[in-house]
Amino acid sequence: MSSEPGVPEGVTDGPSAELNELLGRIGLVDHHTHSIVNGTIERAEYLFMLDESDKPEAADLAGLETQVGFAVRRWCAPLLGMRANEPEGTFLERRLAMANLEVAARLLPAAGFDRLIVETGFRGERLVAPGELGRLASAPVSTVVRLETVAEAVALSGVAATDFADAVVGAVAASLSAGAIALKSIAAYRYGLDLDPSRPEGDAVERAAGAWLRAVEETRIARITDPVLLRLLLWTAIDTGRPLQIHTGYGDTDLHLNRADPIHLTDFIRATEGRAPILLLHTYPFQRNAGYLAQMFANVYMDVGLAVNYTGARSPQVIAESLELAPFGKLLFSSDAWGLPELHLIGSLLFRRGLSRVIGEWVARGDWALGDAERVVRRIAGENARRVYGLPATG
Amino acid sequence: MSSEPGVPEGVTDGPSAELNELLGRIGLVDHHTHSIVNGTIERAEYLFMLDESDKPEAADLAGLETQVGFAVRRWCAPLLGMRANEPEGTFLERRLAMANLEVAARLLPAAGFDRLIVETGFRGERLVAPGELGRLASAPVSTVVRLETVAEAVALSGVAATDFADAVVGAVAASLSAGAIALKSIAAYRYGLDLDPSRPEGDAVERAAGAWLRAVEETRIARITDPVLLRLLLWTAIDTGRPLQIHTGYGDTDLHLNRADPIHLTDFIRATEGRAPILLLHTYPFQRNAGYLAQMFANVYMDVGLAVNYTGARSPQVIAESLELAPFGKLLFSSDAWGLPELHLIGSLLFRRGLSRVIGEWVARGDWALGDAERVVRRIAGENARRVYGLPATG
Amino acid sequence: MSSEPGVPEGVTDGPSAELNELLGRIGLVDHHTHSIVNGTIERAEYLFMLDESDKPEAADLAGLETQVGFAVRRWCAPLLGMRANEPEGTFLERRLAMANLEVAARLLPAAGFDRLIVETGFRGERLVAPGELGRLASAPVSTVVRLETVAEAVALSGVAATDFADAVVGAVAASLSAGAIALKSIAAYRYGLDLDPSRPEGDAVERAAGAWLRAVEETRIARITDPVLLRLLLWTAIDTGRPLQIHTGYGDTDLHLNRADPIHLTDFIRATEGRAPILLLHTYPFQRNAGYLAQMFANVYMDVGLAVNYTGARSPQVIAESLELAPFGKLLFSSDAWGLPELHLIGSLLFRRGLSRVIGEWVARGDWALGDAERVVRRIAGENARRVYGLPATG
Repeated sequence: MSSEPGVPEGVTDGPSAELNELLGRIGLVDHHTHSIVNGTIERAEYLFMLDESDKPEAADLAGLETQVGFAVRRWCAPLLGMRANEPEGTFLERRLAMANLEVAARLLPAAGFDRLIVETGFRGERLVAPGELGRLASAPVSTVVRLETVAEAVALSGVAATDFADAVVGAVAASLSAGAIALKSIAAYRYGLDLDPSRPEGDAVERAAGAWLRAVEETRIARITDPVLLRLLLWTAIDTGRPLQIHTGYGDTDLHLNRADPIHLTDFIRATEGRAPILLLHTYPFQRNAGYLAQMFANVYMDVGLAVNYTGARSPQVIAESLELAPFGKLLFSSDAWGLPELHLIGSLLFRRGLSRVIGEWVARGDWALGDAERVVRRIAGENARRVYGLPATG
Repeated sequence: MSSEPGVPEGVTDGPSAELNELLGRIGLVDHHTHSIVNGTIERAEYLFMLDESDKPEAADLAGLETQVGFAVRRWCAPLLGMRANEPEGTFLERRLAMANLEVAARLLPAAGFDRLIVETGFRGERLVAPGELGRLASAPVSTVVRLETVAEAVALSGVAATDFADAVVGAVAASLSAGAIALKSIAAYRYGLDLDPSRPEGDAVERAAGAWLRAVEETRIARITDPVLLRLLLWTAIDTGRPLQIHTGYGDTDLHLNRADPIHLTDFIRATEGRAPILLLHTYPFQRNAGYLAQMFANVYMDVGLAVNYTGARSPQVIAESLELAPFGKLLFSSDAWGLPELHLIGSLLFRRGLSRVIGEWVARGDWALGDAERVVRRIAGENARRVYGLPATG
Repeated sequence: MSSEPGVPEGVTDGPSAELNELLGRIGLVDHHTHSIVNGTIERAEYLFMLDESDKPEAADLAGLETQVGFAVRRWCAPLLGMRANEPEGTFLERRLAMANLEVAARLLPAAGFDRLIVETGFRGERLVAPGELGRLASAPVSTVVRLETVAEAVALSGVAATDFADAVVGAVAASLSAGAIALKSIAAYRYGLDLDPSRPEGDAVERAAGAWLRAVEETRIARITDPVLLRLLLWTAIDTGRPLQIHTGYGDTDLHLNRADPIHLTDFIRATEGRAPILLLHTYPFQRNAGYLAQMFANVYMDVGLAVNYTGARSPQVIAESLELAPFGKLLFSSDAWGLPELHLIGSLLFRRGLSRVIGEWVARGDWALGDAERVVRRIAGENARRVYGLPATG
């Protein structure tokens, strides 16, 4: 992470000066993020990207009167030439007058990323290339492939149902050969995590693929939702041995939130017997369940990315709940930002701020030793991600 | 809200003097409350009304050794001529010697209500009329009709099964014409919120009504529990376009708590496509799920009333959890008080106190600007309710 | 509790000096604990006992980089002749060089127990006798019998299926006659708490017993998992009228965590109509659901033991969540320690520390009166347990 410009002063405000200092400068490995959109942005689209609802009218009604909206006005406005907490009207006016890349050029360096692990599967055509994101952030970039996107491309390629499973294996392998370091599943909001945990039988896959491929051929739209096929993707990922990111919890209206509880993965985790690292993304409001799984199984990891951004001033408590059962080698940082560099920035700043407060209080009260606290911070900020993903020790 | 007498001093004690001042005087719109009982009250009934159990022996055993009991002794005793935290024995002796209306005359003005929205469906014969409640509180009153009570009156009127649905529509319309401003569902504890979300078919309604009406005719007792008929009520409410309050979460032993999780309403909310405001009441311990729904859907609102009273000294944390995902235009205040004016008073005071602490800390730490905090307080205290229910800007 | 040696100074650090003093010296009734292992301990076994995973590789990977590990290094190291927070490497080296009984002789007196209620059902052959544990802790001991262990002994005794139910009743009665004061169920992780709540029919029991007893005869391994038989045990326990401890929530990988949610017991609690005290053990992360049940039903009690140990520096918040809905006469203290005296010690110290902080803040803010706070502390520390279990007022 470059020191000039760097993380704004005053971000970390916990009771331990040493932890504040460490968390004010340490470079972060963002193990699950996305790229930013190109060009300028209209008000409606901007608000939509600051909201996890898939209903534009919900985002429009909320405006910036949300924790995430307040956090953006608080932390981004000064870096964009406005006062902290600039009122919504003038903030939006001046922000939307700027090109998104110009905003990124101001915000991303201040986020202090050491590395970005970018998931490329959602609306990639609207986004700048991962390399460009990395250049703006002055950080090296790795990529993660979304399993469902791979399968949908296979379906659109005209494969036969009997060849579908092999074609998916081949396409996943090709994406890894081409440089992706991990795989990602969104089964949570295509079906739910309450899937049959077992590896699907070949003939069941063939039947499900046949039905879906016929629909794809007819409609030219490929959106994979069949639970047998979603299981095929999960097992295909496990077979590669590469880290498997799984969306859990809050993050999309397609889903029933309780069906995205990571606890539903318990039997899948058992059935795959530690053959690949499993990273439970987001997890809110199930972060305690995720912590339980991270303690129970040697190959399970977790983060509370996304929730940190969307809970804003409340994010210290969400972070704290993730620090209950999960071993400290199992927690990672992510922003899950998409589209707006504001989300990368506040993802970083709120994480630094929350962790400095939560762990700082434990140090100040004598629950934790300072040296232990500093080591845990370094692990969560990046060391855990480097180990799981097999990344070099710096950059 | 009258300033003489007013909210007791020292109620709000957060780190922001300005917010303390605002929350110490702002008038509240209580968007879901009930009236108070007439006459004097015996010990057993008093304790029963301070407990959400439907088991008198549970309430008797608990006594005032609960968060709500401590809050009543803390905040009500001084207004009734006793010391703060008067011991249980003498508190009960002196309190029960007073008529309930006399207690109300002392406590309600100190609650600082600008308006009371009173649900009239439960044991109305034991309660003073809403207008009398409003007079005691020096606040205008609006009323909300309980759907199940309407349907039960229809059943007792001797309607035919083929006419039941129309009769319910007519009775609901009549209650609105007579002045009610909203409708309320208690499906959560008559069946559970895990209902089929779709509009029930006419013949299914007729069959279910037939069976129920025969039972009503035989027993002369009307208690609606059939899920088809409960769905009919929900859809009848939606068809009016008026705000629909739905009991969720903690609040009655009839239920299985997890079946009252508002997340079960996800598909119902989708199926009704924003045709009426939906207000998720109480929501504890599912306030995070409710916040998710409030963010996802433009027409969903929430409160943590009831839980504030029953968690007492812990209520700031419950309030804080409601301030995570829900947009600030979606949160409302309620006391859900029933029977005892003590519940109206502590509903108000604990809300003021909790909000001053939670938001005050965000202001003190620099997470939120003071002006933003004041605006959010005014919205939750009353502006949101006025907008949803179409109430005048004051009173 | 002996005052020399006693609870280390500085354990309690809340804002109320009086509560700190009280919680620094009050003797605790540990209503659910286990004995300690004999001899010395290897690193792998030590880490395994500090982890609730049943996967040794998960425990090994976590090491002491967990909340419980930090708590052990913080609080136990000084009593074992090391610095507070002794680094993991040297801590383990020096700790593992000591016999477990030698460690116990140093740690147990500092835990300040007035009485230990010891559950004897799990791997008793590896543990010192309860009486020896009591001698080391200078505290009288009572015992609790695990229902499943009783049933498994009956099965191994060669009983006929037609006699199984009677034999279980007899064996349970014999264990009570021999001095046990309560019974314990682990149905949560043998099947789940989502059991049919009704008393199983005699012929269903006979069929289930027949199938299981044949398997036991063949394999000479008795592990009861049939839901009909687990229900038989629960109802047999209720019929005795003695306190029934039920494992709920976090605590074993055998289970699906959500199937251990105590809310699943709602109908069983109703069906048994208050015929015996029911004690919901552990309850994390469902402590709010447990609090709801403790408020609803006169005969339901709860603790957050186990979770206090495993959440370490976060345990004040877990304790605080248990202090929401549960009446103060319904909360008990437990350590759920097993094997290592470290777990007994930190169970006691973290409980004292957490309660002094949580309730101390309510006193300091004026939410609670000091006298009320002291009474609640005395109830949770021991009086509630003495009443439920029918124990003498001291010792």
